Amino acid sequence: MARPVTLFTGQWADLPLEELAEKAGRWGFDGLELACWGDHFEVDKALADDGYVGRVQEVLERNHLNCFALGAHLVGQAVCDPIDSRHRAILPPEVWGDGDPDGVRERAAERMKDTARAAARLGVSQVNGFTGSAIWHMLYSFPPNDFAVIDRGYEDFAERWSPIIDVFDAEGVQFGLEVHPTEIAYDFVTTRRTLDAIDNRESFGINLDPSHFAHQSLDTAQFALEFADRIYHVHVKDSRKRLDGRRSILGSHLNFGEEARGWDFVSPGHGDVDFEALFRALNRIGYDGPLSIEWEDSGMEREWGAQDALAFVRRTDFTPSDVAFDAAMQRS
Amino acid sequence: MARPVTLFTGQWADLPLEELAEKAGRWGFDGLELACWGDHFEVDKALADDGYVGRVQEVLERNHLNCFALGAHLVGQAVCDPIDSRHRAILPPEVWGDGDPDGVRERAAERMKDTARAAARLGVSQVNGFTGSAIWHMLYSFPPNDFAVIDRGYEDFAERWSPIIDVFDAEGVQFGLEVHPTEIAYDFVTTRRTLDAIDNRESFGINLDPSHFAHQSLDTAQFALEFADRIYHVHVKDSRKRLDGRRSILGSHLNFGEEARGWDFVSPGHGDVDFEALFRALNRIGYDGPLSIEWEDSGMEREWGAQDALAFVRRTDFTPSDVAFDAAMQRS
Amino acid sequence: MARPVTLFTGQWADLPLEELAEKAGRWGFDGLELACWGDHFEVDKALADDGYVGRVQEVLERNHLNCFALGAHLVGQAVCDPIDSRHRAILPPEVWGDGDPDGVRERAAERMKDTARAAARLGVSQVNGFTGSAIWHMLYSFPPNDFAVIDRGYEDFAERWSPIIDVFDAEGVQFGLEVHPTEIAYDFVTTRRTLDAIDNRESFGINLDPSHFAHQSLDTAQFALEFADRIYHVHVKDSRKRLDGRRSILGSHLNFGEEARGWDFVSPGHGDVDFEALFRALNRIGYDGPLSIEWEDSGMEREWGAQDALAFVRRTDFTPSDVAFDAAMQRS
Amino acid sequence: MARPVTLFTGQWADLPLEELAEKAGRWGFDGLELACWGDHFEVDKALADDGYVGRVQEVLERNHLNCFALGAHLVGQAVCDPIDSRHRAILPPEVWGDGDPDGVRERAAERMKDTARAAARLGVSQVNGFTGSAIWHMLYSFPPNDFAVIDRGYEDFAERWSPIIDVFDAEGVQFGLEVHPTEIAYDFVTTRRTLDAIDNRESFGINLDPSHFAHQSLDTAQFALEFADRIYHVHVKDSRKRLDGRRSILGSHLNFGEEARGWDFVSPGHGDVDFEALFRALNRIGYDGPLSIEWEDSGMEREWGAQDALAFVRRTDFTPSDVAFDAAMQRS
Amino acid sequence: MARPVTLFTGQWADLPLEELAEKAGRWGFDGLELACWGDHFEVDKALADDGYVGRVQEVLERNHLNCFALGAHLVGQAVCDPIDSRHRAILPPEVWGDGDPDGVRERAAERMKDTARAAARLGVSQVNGFTGSAIWHMLYSFPPNDFAVIDRGYEDFAERWSPIIDVFDAEGVQFGLEVHPTEIAYDFVTTRRTLDAIDNRESFGINLDPSHFAHQSLDTAQFALEFADRIYHVHVKDSRKRLDGRRSILGSHLNFGEEARGWDFVSPGHGDVDFEALFRALNRIGYDGPLSIEWEDSGMEREWGAQDALAFVRRTDFTPSDVAFDAAMQRS
Amino acid sequence: MARPVTLFTGQWADLPLEELAEKAGRWGFDGLELACWGDHFEVDKALADDGYVGRVQEVLERNHLNCFALGAHLVGQAVCDPIDSRHRAILPPEVWGDGDPDGVRERAAERMKDTARAAARLGVSQVNGFTGSAIWHMLYSFPPNDFAVIDRGYEDFAERWSPIIDVFDAEGVQFGLEVHPTEIAYDFVTTRRTLDAIDNRESFGINLDPSHFAHQSLDTAQFALEFADRIYHVHVKDSRKRLDGRRSILGSHLNFGEEARGWDFVSPGHGDVDFEALFRALNRIGYDGPLSIEWEDSGMEREWGAQDALAFVRRTDFTPSDVAFDAAMQRS
Repeated sequence: MARPVTLFTGQWADLPLEELAEKAGRWGFDGLELACWGDHFEVDKALADDGYVGRVQEVLERNHLNCFALGAHLVGQAVCDPIDSRHRAILPPEVWGDGDPDGVRERAAERMKDTARAAARLGVSQVNGFTGSAIWHMLYSFPPNDFAVIDRGYEDFAERWSPIIDVFDAEGVQFGLEVHPTEIAYDFVTTRRTLDAIDNRESFGINLDPSHFAHQSLDTAQFALEFADRIYHVHVKDSRKRLDGRRSILGSHLNFGEEARGWDFVSPGHGDVDFEALFRALNRIGYDGPLSIEWEDSGMEREWGAQDALAFVRRTDFTPSDVAFDAAMQRS
Repeated sequence: MARPVTLFTGQWADLPLEELAEKAGRWGFDGLELACWGDHFEVDKALADDGYVGRVQEVLERNHLNCFALGAHLVGQAVCDPIDSRHRAILPPEVWGDGDPDGVRERAAERMKDTARAAARLGVSQVNGFTGSAIWHMLYSFPPNDFAVIDRGYEDFAERWSPIIDVFDAEGVQFGLEVHPTEIAYDFVTTRRTLDAIDNRESFGINLDPSHFAHQSLDTAQFALEFADRIYHVHVKDSRKRLDGRRSILGSHLNFGEEARGWDFVSPGHGDVDFEALFRALNRIGYDGPLSIEWEDSGMEREWGAQDALAFVRRTDFTPSDVAFDAAMQRS
Repeated sequence: MARPVTLFTGQWADLPLEELAEKAGRWGFDGLELACWGDHFEVDKALADDGYVGRVQEVLERNHLNCFALGAHLVGQAVCDPIDSRHRAILPPEVWGDGDPDGVRERAAERMKDTARAAARLGVSQVNGFTGSAIWHMLYSFPPNDFAVIDRGYEDFAERWSPIIDVFDAEGVQFGLEVHPTEIAYDFVTTRRTLDAIDNRESFGINLDPSHFAHQSLDTAQFALEFADRIYHVHVKDSRKRLDGRRSILGSHLNFGEEARGWDFVSPGHGDVDFEALFRALNRIGYDGPLSIEWEDSGMEREWGAQDALAFVRRTDFTPSDVAFDAAMQRS
Repeated sequence: MARPVTLFTGQWADLPLEELAEKAGRWGFDGLELACWGDHFEVDKALADDGYVGRVQEVLERNHLNCFALGAHLVGQAVCDPIDSRHRAILPPEVWGDGDPDGVRERAAERMKDTARAAARLGVSQVNGFTGSAIWHMLYSFPPNDFAVIDRGYEDFAERWSPIIDVFDAEGVQFGLEVHPTEIAYDFVTTRRTLDAIDNRESFGINLDPSHFAHQSLDTAQFALEFADRIYHVHVKDSRKRLDGRRSILGSHLNFGEEARGWDFVSPGHGDVDFEALFRALNRIGYDGPLSIEWEDSGMEREWGAQDALAFVRRTDFTPSDVAFDAAMQRS
Repeated sequence: MARPVTLFTGQWADLPLEELAEKAGRWGFDGLELACWGDHFEVDKALADDGYVGRVQEVLERNHLNCFALGAHLVGQAVCDPIDSRHRAILPPEVWGDGDPDGVRERAAERMKDTARAAARLGVSQVNGFTGSAIWHMLYSFPPNDFAVIDRGYEDFAERWSPIIDVFDAEGVQFGLEVHPTEIAYDFVTTRRTLDAIDNRESFGINLDPSHFAHQSLDTAQFALEFADRIYHVHVKDSRKRLDGRRSILGSHLNFGEEARGWDFVSPGHGDVDFEALFRALNRIGYDGPLSIEWEDSGMEREWGAQDALAFVRRTDFTPSDVAFDAAMQRS
Repeated sequence: MARPVTLFTGQWADLPLEELAEKAGRWGFDGLELACWGDHFEVDKALADDGYVGRVQEVLERNHLNCFALGAHLVGQAVCDPIDSRHRAILPPEVWGDGDPDGVRERAAERMKDTARAAARLGVSQVNGFTGSAIWHMLYSFPPNDFAVIDRGYEDFAERWSPIIDVFDAEGVQFGLEVHPTEIAYDFVTTRRTLDAIDNRESFGINLDPSHFAHQSLDTAQFALEFADRIYHVHVKDSRKRLDGRRSILGSHLNFGEEARGWDFVSPGHGDVDFEALFRALNRIGYDGPLSIEWEDSGMEREWGAQDALAFVRRTDFTPSDVAFDAAMQRS
């Protein structure tokens, strides 16, 4: 009960912030993790328009909502990725520009710097997001990888993100990479290599989202313990494996929500994630930041689900103990 | 015991055919599935040099070995793939040429046609291999896939392979796609889509290799039953999952043989594949072609392993029954 | 939340309808699935007495209850079964008559036709029930079955039920076979054969009850998908396996509720059925009929249990989505 | 290695004894468990023809084979069963007679007495077989069983078999019921009730066959321990569950060997039975009788399989210890 | 809902009874199981001070709480244990005395007799506790145990506890041993031996606590059935295994609450105990005493947890049935 | 096949070395790990009698056996243990002396130093054994441990063993603690603490025996990787869990070999240990020392078992690879 529960607005970008904030407040959320797309938080306006940030804050306050973090996933993705037409659909036109890959990557990097600056203006010290990856597409080593190229992928990440992190440092803002397939880090091994690649700089940490671990058969609670000093933010999102010998864990090039997929995202508490184990691990490492519900379930009505998820977190995230039990059995 | 057991020579291309054939014959194999690389089976020489095929046959016969199939995986991979530097390492120089992607793909397609022709000359009616894929790298849909592009990937496959299959038809040779990650088909769903894309043409079937199914949590025996009329050739290869909450099923961008991988290839009978179930399924569908050992295990000495694998197959592949049991209990 | 939740009255036939309806209404049910025994719905009276149907409707309305389906399990059972003394206990005296098997079967068939007629009078278009089976007792093939006799069992079913279905057709009422051990269909294979035997006539569908699937190790959600166009009604009932090496899955000829049984019925949500998976499958196939709680648990007080079950269904049956999530991440 | 390994001849009745004995001797079996059908052991001739038994013994001796037990399953089945056309196919014509159920049951009972007498003549003190059951077909209690009728089924068994056991007693021969679905006893509960029904008479024991336990999820080793003083003979036979959510554990009214069945018989060591655990339990209870291979596997060639099974038993049935290990660590 | 739910006060001994009773009453507990340490129930005062018992009763009544049992674990532990410095910390000074082991054990035995007398004064007929064990430390037989010494341990228990039980008999009070590692009985085998050692005297029964069974892989519900006539009291406490190949089930000599332990205590409903199975077993054996929550979870705030546990028990402990279901389907 | 396979003689001390060596040589072992009890290797004679060592070597050589290690478990146990009557049974009389605990521990320590000296004389650089533990009996923390006392247990170990290790250093011999319940180290956590307690001195390593890990649910292969630089010797011994809800993992104070135990030792390959995983891990860390079979199985004849175990190791311990497979697919 100790930790605030927020709603990540990325999957609600079809609704204006005004409308979503009103709902979230009414449902009982403690805050919003504002996505930097739709009209939820517009980085360019925040820097260009002196009144913008105040108007956002006013909407939040009116609905008794805090903001502990921004979500800048879409632009971040373009910083390291080989660029293709899919990026056009997720980038602001001015970042996409003429679509020349090098240019897109550079403009995306600049926009990430601006995001740190805008976050600081809003008084928010945490920005979550993706990094993209120059090597993700070489996931399965056939044709056989030249592993020097894989090494080079981590270096490319470090080169592209170091200047961005410099700005985060300067602004007093931290970045939280959502460890996730398609990113430079998506599991234990690659997270360790990623952090090493930037010399474990303090401003670059992790937005821990267990839904991306469960289908890889990874233990999120163990991850929290092993990377304890870099857990800067936590998403509450769930996924479910449905392996019956006919469905592949790799997804079959099917869209989320297709029956024949081997795994899919589901509303928190309806999937494979052991949230109690995760919350106990967060207690152990002293994480007291927000639990931010990233709600996605292609089989459930969204508003019913968001409230169900909030109730789930409220009853599952208990306060840690400060008592040693057998002590009560001993004479003082 | 009914089916011949052959050795796929792809992982032994560092040895001259003469030397490998002598070993395989001595170990007791019934034949070789000749790889179209190294000096094992050279497609260009087979077409250009009238004596070549006879010399290959002579080496086989001297060692009491048959040849039921060729393996043309490396060139096939380049037919549909986006081409990068990794392909250079696996293609003959004349196929790679200047490395321009369109040219590479066209020359690879031509070489596949030649492979059918060369197989016919050798008196072999089965060529196994890969197809490549224009869409494999979009495996995880982020940035979100435009699924029309995915659909287009299957069409691209059909356009590039139909003319190749025409030549196979003309030569009386069948192609067996090794269903495998990085190919157009790698599981139940994508195999169905692939076969549909080419209207289930009879000359295009499957080289069934269970090692690529086990780590996806797929049931190879069930696959054999569902695609019974397209199982043209079978590889005996194994893989093993080692999931402990820290190792990802996705492979962590680590090379095969690395300790921290979530799965790896192992010698047949040492992994997760249920070969008895597979062989029973093959009995049920009437498959009487070769069981071709593709031996790969980064933790085992190769020659010890090949013999161990042969013994494993000999004792596991029993003859099917032709008796109904309760019949013996009934008066005639 | 979209689907109405009803109570099947079969296990409450010791209570008069008046009393049961009052309770069910008070507990919050949306309706009753009236059993055609006890005084809940009397087929003969419904046809003979013009006021009967109106009086039943009045009781329901007074308690704010709908009726979407009748349950005619007991008489249906006698249509195909070899008749023995156990049928006497479950049949109306006029159907049992002198107990001569042929006569019993014929009178039961006639009563099923009347049930369709009575349902139509009541304005209900769904009748659920059993079919019986001429071959169930040959479940385990020893002495070895003559499988021509098994084939004949499906034909017998078709011959006996076709005239009944004709009346259903004429009355605009559908029959829903509760797939269940002791019936002509009790699993995937036998359901397929059963539907084939009557040429998939549209008036003959399925009342899907997962409690009969779980102890057979069958996946009810998968069943719903495979027989999507014949899922006409759904029971919410649960069962639990308790296999410890000493308890047989076959039941040991022990009555339900005995400690030493290998499985037993339990209140919904207390057993092995994965209701969330089932409800998601129902969403996928577009089923919007009632979820009818058939409550049976020999270890739980009945009225406490019925309310517990209702609450369970209300919180588990969520509304499906009409949104694609990654769409919110894309620019329009 | 201590226990003799025999072959039960029931599934080989299409071969003359001469031919089968020659094979079994050559394969290395220690003996045959002769089936009382085909020409393997003919009870009527053994009693009527003074030379018959000697001729059988001569065939065995010539092939270095012992006989520790007879198998009289088919006639035994008819003693308690409701008789139908399936029994005609498994009974000798003179036992079937006119097929009137009461007469069949009586003649079958008489033939079982004769079997004891014939066994004594052959010098064999163990007859294995089935009992049939008046109540098996009421396995699933719907229509609801009158459990007094179930009780009566055990009494019927006792009434019909007590006079038979009297003859066994008189002849110094023991009967071993093969605990098995369709018999009066098929699991722990029903075996206990069966033995109680005949006051645990010493001449009535068990022929333990694990293949009938595995698909019921029963632990055969535990059964051996609990019924230790009635384990008179042991069959080595195996079965395998293949439950994937679509296949029922109940068998779907499909014949053995059908792909869609949820379980099937397989050659020993190829299924779910834990034979090492069973053999350790047999060591613990001091069983030193034969291990009799009842070979049945619809997917394996019979003669290959019999030899595979024999080799399996030889390597799995090790000699028990007579040493306490830590004793070697202690000073005397 | 039939059984009262109490709170065992042992882990709350740092709070005065007044304060704890006020909280427990407010939270909705039905009673307290008073620990005989702290100021919750002081045996010496209860016998010496005529007003003491009344004052305790008054505190309970004021808060609408009953008392069905006392908890005398700490002193009981010293009756059979080899005494070391750890006992000093848990014993009253007058029982510890000079710490000479024989004297400590004798004084502890006398105090247990007094506890029975004090319970009788309070009107409570159940005292729960530990026995200690002379042989627990020989758990793993290395150096190899002389098993005559183990036998002697059970005799020692009988000799030391028989006089205590005499007093319990005289006072009309029952003792409930909490079966638990470190006690003379901690599983099925040792409980049987323990009860046998004292000739199954009726005054010596069991306080069943499932949290001590789960980490041993024991089935508490089965235990309740096997020792049905000695289940005198039930604790509701839970534990959770966390075995990942690196954590030992033996505890690693780490304190409870340490991350690296292989198992730990957790709040009821958060662990491995199947409470529904346990409560169903308690229904079956007719146990209608209290369910006493012994709350211990080093990762959860104590007061939040106690209320969570109470709610868990209220919703899980349903009333048993008094109806046979199929009866409703039969004509009377 | 690369590693020699030896037999640990500890469980055969009832046989004279001459007789055992003859058997082991005939069975095909590569060597013996000589136990320092019985007449197998007598430390006092080795130091006192100049001809003794030569005579032992002669026996080994005559039987074509090597000796890579001694086993000094029994005396080592007494170095740290609280001494009781069980130690008398396993110690030489001159070490036991008057049985005063302090004296026993000191004499045991001196004897361990002598063992190092004797090993050096024999030309053997590895001595395996136990350490005992001052704190093992506090395994389950009730009465609650004072964890400062636990800390003190590791210090006590370090104080007692450091002078012994000094002698090992001086003699060029290594000690291998068999990590094992009842020793100072028995799992991952305690092994780490143990090695830390003596500052990871190089002469103190591990004799890895997987049979002590399996019943604790520990992964021996993982242990080998984590403590790679201290794996000095490996035992091949197996154990099997038999948990059915009635058998405790803690052993029930029953002797090995009792039916009701929850786990027991079994012949290698017959239990829960994954030897292939272990041997692959040993390959990975470069261990090339002996695999020493410590044979113990209370249900199997010892001589049959030793040969079965040797065959098991020979077929399971394959040579590691020195080839990278995909390399064969690439052009050089």
